Amino acid sequence: MYLGVDYYPEQWPKSRWPEDIRLMKELGVNVVRMAEYGWHLIEPEEGVYDFSLLNEIIDELTENGIKIVLGTPTAVPPAWMVQKYPDILPADRNGRPISFGGRRHYTVNSKVYQRFTEKVVRKLAEKYGHHPDVIGWQIDNEFGHEKSDRSYGNEDRTSFWFWLQNRYGSLEAVNEAWGTAFWGQTYTEWEQIPLPLNVYQQHNPGLLLDFDRFCAAGYTAYSKLQVDLLRETISDHQFITHNFVFNEQAINQRDIAENLDFVSSGNYPAWGSGPEPATPASIAMQHDICRSTKEGKGFWVMEEITGAQGWNHTGYLPRPGQIRLWTYQAIARGAEAILYFRWRSSRFGTEQFSHGILGHDGKPKRKFEEVKETIAALKTFGDEWVASDYIPEVGMYYEVGNAWAWRIQPQSRAFDYKQELLRFYYGAYHLNSATCIVSPKSTLDGLKVVIVPVYFLTDPDFTDKLKKFAAEGGTAVLSYRSGLKEPSNALTELTLPGELAELAGIHVEEFEALQPGQQTRIRGTTGNIKDILSPATVWCDIIKSISADVIGVYRDAYYEGEPAITRNRYGKGVVYYIGTAVEEYFLMRLYKDIFKEAGVGMIELPDDVEMVVRTGTGGKKFLCLLNHSTTASHRLTLPKGHWKDVMTGEIFNGVVRLPSLGSYVLMQ
Amino acid sequence: MYLGVDYYPEQWPKSRWPEDIRLMKELGVNVVRMAEYGWHLIEPEEGVYDFSLLNEIIDELTENGIKIVLGTPTAVPPAWMVQKYPDILPADRNGRPISFGGRRHYTVNSKVYQRFTEKVVRKLAEKYGHHPDVIGWQIDNEFGHEKSDRSYGNEDRTSFWFWLQNRYGSLEAVNEAWGTAFWGQTYTEWEQIPLPLNVYQQHNPGLLLDFDRFCAAGYTAYSKLQVDLLRETISDHQFITHNFVFNEQAINQRDIAENLDFVSSGNYPAWGSGPEPATPASIAMQHDICRSTKEGKGFWVMEEITGAQGWNHTGYLPRPGQIRLWTYQAIARGAEAILYFRWRSSRFGTEQFSHGILGHDGKPKRKFEEVKETIAALKTFGDEWVASDYIPEVGMYYEVGNAWAWRIQPQSRAFDYKQELLRFYYGAYHLNSATCIVSPKSTLDGLKVVIVPVYFLTDPDFTDKLKKFAAEGGTAVLSYRSGLKEPSNALTELTLPGELAELAGIHVEEFEALQPGQQTRIRGTTGNIKDILSPATVWCDIIKSISADVIGVYRDAYYEGEPAITRNRYGKGVVYYIGTAVEEYFLMRLYKDIFKEAGVGMIELPDDVEMVVRTGTGGKKFLCLLNHSTTASHRLTLPKGHWKDVMTGEIFNGVVRLPSLGSYVLMQ
Amino acid sequence: MYLGVDYYPEQWPKSRWPEDIRLMKELGVNVVRMAEYGWHLIEPEEGVYDFSLLNEIIDELTENGIKIVLGTPTAVPPAWMVQKYPDILPADRNGRPISFGGRRHYTVNSKVYQRFTEKVVRKLAEKYGHHPDVIGWQIDNEFGHEKSDRSYGNEDRTSFWFWLQNRYGSLEAVNEAWGTAFWGQTYTEWEQIPLPLNVYQQHNPGLLLDFDRFCAAGYTAYSKLQVDLLRETISDHQFITHNFVFNEQAINQRDIAENLDFVSSGNYPAWGSGPEPATPASIAMQHDICRSTKEGKGFWVMEEITGAQGWNHTGYLPRPGQIRLWTYQAIARGAEAILYFRWRSSRFGTEQFSHGILGHDGKPKRKFEEVKETIAALKTFGDEWVASDYIPEVGMYYEVGNAWAWRIQPQSRAFDYKQELLRFYYGAYHLNSATCIVSPKSTLDGLKVVIVPVYFLTDPDFTDKLKKFAAEGGTAVLSYRSGLKEPSNALTELTLPGELAELAGIHVEEFEALQPGQQTRIRGTTGNIKDILSPATVWCDIIKSISADVIGVYRDAYYEGEPAITRNRYGKGVVYYIGTAVEEYFLMRLYKDIFKEAGVGMIELPDDVEMVVRTGTGGKKFLCLLNHSTTASHRLTLPKGHWKDVMTGEIFNGVVRLPSLGSYVLMQ
Repeated sequence: MYLGVDYYPEQWPKSRWPEDIRLMKELGVNVVRMAEYGWHLIEPEEGVYDFSLLNEIIDELTENGIKIVLGTPTAVPPAWMVQKYPDILPADRNGRPISFGGRRHYTVNSKVYQRFTEKVVRKLAEKYGHHPDVIGWQIDNEFGHEKSDRSYGNEDRTSFWFWLQNRYGSLEAVNEAWGTAFWGQTYTEWEQIPLPLNVYQQHNPGLLLDFDRFCAAGYTAYSKLQVDLLRETISDHQFITHNFVFNEQAINQRDIAENLDFVSSGNYPAWGSGPEPATPASIAMQHDICRSTKEGKGFWVMEEITGAQGWNHTGYLPRPGQIRLWTYQAIARGAEAILYFRWRSSRFGTEQFSHGILGHDGKPKRKFEEVKETIAALKTFGDEWVASDYIPEVGMYYEVGNAWAWRIQPQSRAFDYKQELLRFYYGAYHLNSATCIVSPKSTLDGLKVVIVPVYFLTDPDFTDKLKKFAAEGGTAVLSYRSGLKEPSNALTELTLPGELAELAGIHVEEFEALQPGQQTRIRGTTGNIKDILSPATVWCDIIKSISADVIGVYRDAYYEGEPAITRNRYGKGVVYYIGTAVEEYFLMRLYKDIFKEAGVGMIELPDDVEMVVRTGTGGKKFLCLLNHSTTASHRLTLPKGHWKDVMTGEIFNGVVRLPSLGSYVLMQ
Repeated sequence: MYLGVDYYPEQWPKSRWPEDIRLMKELGVNVVRMAEYGWHLIEPEEGVYDFSLLNEIIDELTENGIKIVLGTPTAVPPAWMVQKYPDILPADRNGRPISFGGRRHYTVNSKVYQRFTEKVVRKLAEKYGHHPDVIGWQIDNEFGHEKSDRSYGNEDRTSFWFWLQNRYGSLEAVNEAWGTAFWGQTYTEWEQIPLPLNVYQQHNPGLLLDFDRFCAAGYTAYSKLQVDLLRETISDHQFITHNFVFNEQAINQRDIAENLDFVSSGNYPAWGSGPEPATPASIAMQHDICRSTKEGKGFWVMEEITGAQGWNHTGYLPRPGQIRLWTYQAIARGAEAILYFRWRSSRFGTEQFSHGILGHDGKPKRKFEEVKETIAALKTFGDEWVASDYIPEVGMYYEVGNAWAWRIQPQSRAFDYKQELLRFYYGAYHLNSATCIVSPKSTLDGLKVVIVPVYFLTDPDFTDKLKKFAAEGGTAVLSYRSGLKEPSNALTELTLPGELAELAGIHVEEFEALQPGQQTRIRGTTGNIKDILSPATVWCDIIKSISADVIGVYRDAYYEGEPAITRNRYGKGVVYYIGTAVEEYFLMRLYKDIFKEAGVGMIELPDDVEMVVRTGTGGKKFLCLLNHSTTASHRLTLPKGHWKDVMTGEIFNGVVRLPSLGSYVLMQ
Repeated sequence: MYLGVDYYPEQWPKSRWPEDIRLMKELGVNVVRMAEYGWHLIEPEEGVYDFSLLNEIIDELTENGIKIVLGTPTAVPPAWMVQKYPDILPADRNGRPISFGGRRHYTVNSKVYQRFTEKVVRKLAEKYGHHPDVIGWQIDNEFGHEKSDRSYGNEDRTSFWFWLQNRYGSLEAVNEAWGTAFWGQTYTEWEQIPLPLNVYQQHNPGLLLDFDRFCAAGYTAYSKLQVDLLRETISDHQFITHNFVFNEQAINQRDIAENLDFVSSGNYPAWGSGPEPATPASIAMQHDICRSTKEGKGFWVMEEITGAQGWNHTGYLPRPGQIRLWTYQAIARGAEAILYFRWRSSRFGTEQFSHGILGHDGKPKRKFEEVKETIAALKTFGDEWVASDYIPEVGMYYEVGNAWAWRIQPQSRAFDYKQELLRFYYGAYHLNSATCIVSPKSTLDGLKVVIVPVYFLTDPDFTDKLKKFAAEGGTAVLSYRSGLKEPSNALTELTLPGELAELAGIHVEEFEALQPGQQTRIRGTTGNIKDILSPATVWCDIIKSISADVIGVYRDAYYEGEPAITRNRYGKGVVYYIGTAVEEYFLMRLYKDIFKEAGVGMIELPDDVEMVVRTGTGGKKFLCLLNHSTTASHRLTLPKGHWKDVMTGEIFNGVVRLPSLGSYVLMQ
């Protein structure tokens, strides 16, 4: 498997390169990613190309057996271009241009920038498209990151009109979809449609959601422009990927990924001034999202954390053992290659405190040793492990448009979409069931349970799939605020949960948004949750059962005793509706009932411990055991059979002890 | 009486109208307000008028016995107008234009917009000014709401110069009034005077207050423009009103109301992400302010809450019974008509989560039933009740200019003007005394006590009235920070409380602003407050008595033992000065002494209970009893005599039991 | 000594002047500062000068024996100038012009403004440069205050390019210094270099620091322009000063002060809505900074607080006795003259609530009496006291560039540079040792200990001085985050603490930023701190000793037991390294050991009490004793010998009792 580093040779004197390469070889590196911020290097002035520095370092690296992933350099238009063509700059939500001096200072809607992109990508493809040691391409870097997703300038405005014309065909259709009769905002010419710049109140949610779609579509088109150009020229053995960021920005990773060979992303469980790293479950969910972007295809971690990270502030320092732990977790959940970020901490620029494997002094220390040991271990069993399969049984719905719709209208100040996803993910994670993320385009075949948290913005295709899935015997878990919005972001005219009412066998009679600090309670009435109480936060649906059984009721407020959780038979399947944001452990207890009935594999381990099973050829099982605790060690009972530690060869049968931050791969 | 709904037929297909009207009739509705956002409907392009949709729905409604209140549509300039005449847009405090896409996106200072307003209002008046079932007009909607009060664009700047010229006559007078010698800001040409755009520090308080006055004057003139145009054409039986918002924005509701037949406003005790509704006392005060805007004349609640409200966030869900409770409270305090907002929750636009009587599904449920019962009850006794009089004995001073002055210079971070008003209102509310709001133009005749909280910006007319009131035997209650500012927003040169020093019989020697979380304490020394302690927050005046008796002293700080509350005889009357922000219950105890001496009617009931007395013809008394608690029921002793429940006819003598959220009207 | 007031005669009618002067004489005033906002008075229109008002008030004052300090009026360009030449306005960080209406609304980079400045200063110098009673000049007022330090307009941009050209000579040098290879930001023309306007991320720290230097250099040049012009004309007996603000704004007080006769500043321990005054140690440190700006030369307090202060909010009211206490503290630490701010509270403008000696009513009250007594006392012994010397033994490093660098990259959210300075200052303050502030240009001769907190941005000169100081027997105290940055704001390539590693005898292996609320602990292992625990916050360096002794270790986290504090012999001296932010008392305990060994004079008194020793001619000692507590009195043991109270003549031997807020000067 590929194990490497992110390297910025242009930031260091050439005299240092040999020492860098010597240390990389000592580390075990077989690939580096380079040049994603290198436009100024290869086109130092308009139309003048110079590949000498790139040639030189590529030669030095490849002579030492290190392969290359080349970045197209479009994440940073060079200074001369901004000076000459300032209209390529994006504009902030006040319509003011973003200044040169950071990164990602371009709008995808700039025709001029598209033209420059074409030229530079073509030149690079011609130059390295058939280089035997250039194994692939990363186009641009972190599309849409750091608010670069939405641009509010003049070219964006014109492009928005054009996009709307394509989408809707007529202004009548726009007016109808957005319901512009509200507040008398009917448009009679395309040029009347505003970008969502500052109003005294809030813009039409239909316009806002379409603006997000438009922004995402711009990136999809821009990415396709690069991919298509590369494919024209490069050899078949070279792959094309992009280093994604998975958050709620207005880009559509799945759409972009359709044209890529595989997906890549960064893995930064600690960033900025955060005093603690992300929770293990949230990292796991991130990997599941990443792997599911191309429906289970393995991905690359193009930037794997190796030290405290941040710009003007840093926080948590990853503990000894944690680099390996996070590396194993990523591979267990689908990563096929790991590139550590960054080779050496930069002496200059915004990322001076984004610490790398080497510190500013360039000397190998503790982190170097940890990465070295990790790479050495992976060289012994990584290829086989990576070749094995991760076979999901539980799917969770996540669609980026739903995230945008929630961002536009969070409805309760206590609502954070990622947090709600995690609430519904946690139980499955804790039970160590095999999870994946599904979207409207995904097949649900093979899944036993599909969890659909806060399915606010509906997708008719997915709704149909879900009905079919349940009808044919699958188990669906729905939550509060399901079925509200039509794709246009208009509210359904149906009684909630709208198109899902029959599926869930309920009507939502009323509802209340709870704010931060507010809570009511619910009590379970059957099975594992019988007489168990849970706080209910964020939102309370007051439910009327039509055909469903009530399995949880409210304890407080004027709706005490009213149904809060229901279970409905639908065709051959079962549909749960969870009408309020219950506590994660409560949900996990409920999941135990649900999963058991649905035949989902599960095993309950100590809180800190994560177990991921993969299946190789001939039914060979890989068990990855991760103890995320920085202080506690844990003894745990293994699944039946003899398990061999892939590193030491030691055989375990029954119980194994995991030290704090310990990570093991066992085989059977 | 009129009981109706706010209806937006343009947001629904015509095929739905018959069902809407059927349900309205079932509900008991006899009036709807319409068309206040309908400019695009009646003038779809410049100069082209089309009343067909309006005609159609008016016909359908009136054929079913429902009367119409028509809005002039100027709260939303249509998209074509903004496209063609972008200068009608207002500008934010950075001078940037507000975008199309919300509402209220015009500046009253735009000559172009005034011209368009004239044309559309005239057309409407011609069309419906003599329609027998159009009973009246609402001009525009919610003047100045949501920061639309202050606009900082080029036309505003020119208008500001012109307004200053009219007000001051000469630049010398401006320089003198504002004291521009301070920081060397003397103006030598009108064009030098800035709008209060961004400075490194803070603008001259004289300029800031005059800018607020100018903004308010612009709205007064703009409203007069519409009213005058309507009156030219419409029939005498049609009224003209405006749906006001009562907060501290830069509009002058009293000035605008002078040209109106009566005042209207919305009643939204819960809005946005607030987890709890407004306190009962604050709702009551709001109604008092509304009723007092035209000196006691009955008002309309043009928008009465029926569900959780908000844009991107909602919070508190009004409890069963609360719609009726808030309806009764409004009527008891002066409302003559109630229109519920809104008929049906919108499927589109910014107010998707501003829930109406019907939900998005258009089906009658709990709220429909509650409104229906409320309307049915009011049909039996509402007319007589509304015809009765609310006779105030206690006046509280509130003048919007004072609010602006406090907003400009809050002096303590703990200071919130509305909160301080409520502090001084609460005692009178809790004692169920009959209150009203007075302003400089009000007569004080008939009042027994006048409370003047934080009379910071003085008005010579009111100061004179107050002196006369006290001299002739009235009781005045003054507070800390009284008498500071001349109308120009300059500080008085007199020892504090300035012009009120003789009235109060004191000098304020020093003072200290207390910040949030800070407090000292005071101790009462006579009567009901003898030896009672209260926290003292926000502000501490250290008082020297000239002729007053000390009735409260400080307990802490270096000014321990110094006077904090005083009582002075002035002519035939009495004047209290309360030098610090004491706790509401302490103030209530003091009020009991004050009211008793002044002969003000009062009755102390449980905390949650509000009682409002109205007097009908022949001395008939209406007792409205409201239990605002959502959980506790209360037994309470009625005023002497036999009281008949107007609904059930049941006779009470002595004690009555009010369930939680219960609302009764008794008659004697 | 000079004791006076800040007077704004232009804000009051001339008829009031005689009463003002009568009261000033009663108060004992011998000097007033005037006219620093008077441009509009002397140049009411372009090119027309009128000194009549100034002449008149100068005559009245000087006839009454009061001397004059004249301000040049450039802090406020008049309204006519802004109208005619709007380009003199500065721009905010969004590039938007700052409006007229406050103060300091000019950019030093405006050529037009420089020309106007020349003319008005020359006129003033010609007029009053030889006036016998005008004793000196204050140029402008509070350079850079209230964000007026950094301007982002077009003239600033051009000036920045020019400044960079001068500093670097070539673009290659800029690219190298800033490391623009990072994120591909290499500049190929000067005009490509942006001002630090809005980017999606953060600007290059090299650019940011140079922008701060550029802003400061602009003010230094602008100040020199005024000083040079004055010196051309004025007589030798007139001094030139500036009223500085000492905070982290982008001006360089030491550079500006080089051209001044002495430094002045305001002393406002309470401002705005602060509920409590600044701590005594922080006021003391401020005075040390001020005195050290010209390496120990006495300074003037040009504005000494006399009441609650602020603009739209005020807070803490200085207690009776506190004006005298703060006056004595200032003098003890180097003030040679005190002018109280302000004579009378303004009735107009932004500072209506910046209360003066007289209130708005112009009547002498408590504060007048307190100032009067203070002045009377100082008249008896002030001259001799002021003439004595403050002889520092402990220097603390503070360089404004270091402050800027920290502001750009605070690294931990818990980091506040002033707070960290105070942490390291407090111990020396509490031990009543004689402190001063040193900068790269200061001599370290005569000092016994030099404390260098958070020496982030290194200065090669100072590093050399410090090495020499230690080598020759001095004691240096370094802290975490030392030695990181080269002057260009690039990170050192050396292992931390970089150039100081040999001095401290350590390497910093790793480090972690702790956030607000986070802490670990350390334990001392020798001397006064043996087995004493302290919280460790903000930052933790994990140290490897090369040649140093470990005297403190971590107690928690994975680096438990690792060195946290070290002590190294270096030449004849000793160097301490304190690797984490320990608690002030812990540091004080450590200082006791350090100071004892270094022979630094110290005396430990109750927490509230400050003692400052000055040495007069013939070894006469002045002991200033200050009890900062507002509530507690303290008994304390005097240094050996007989001490005479300079006011009462009373002799103390041994013990003295200080009432709360008591301030004494004793002599020996």
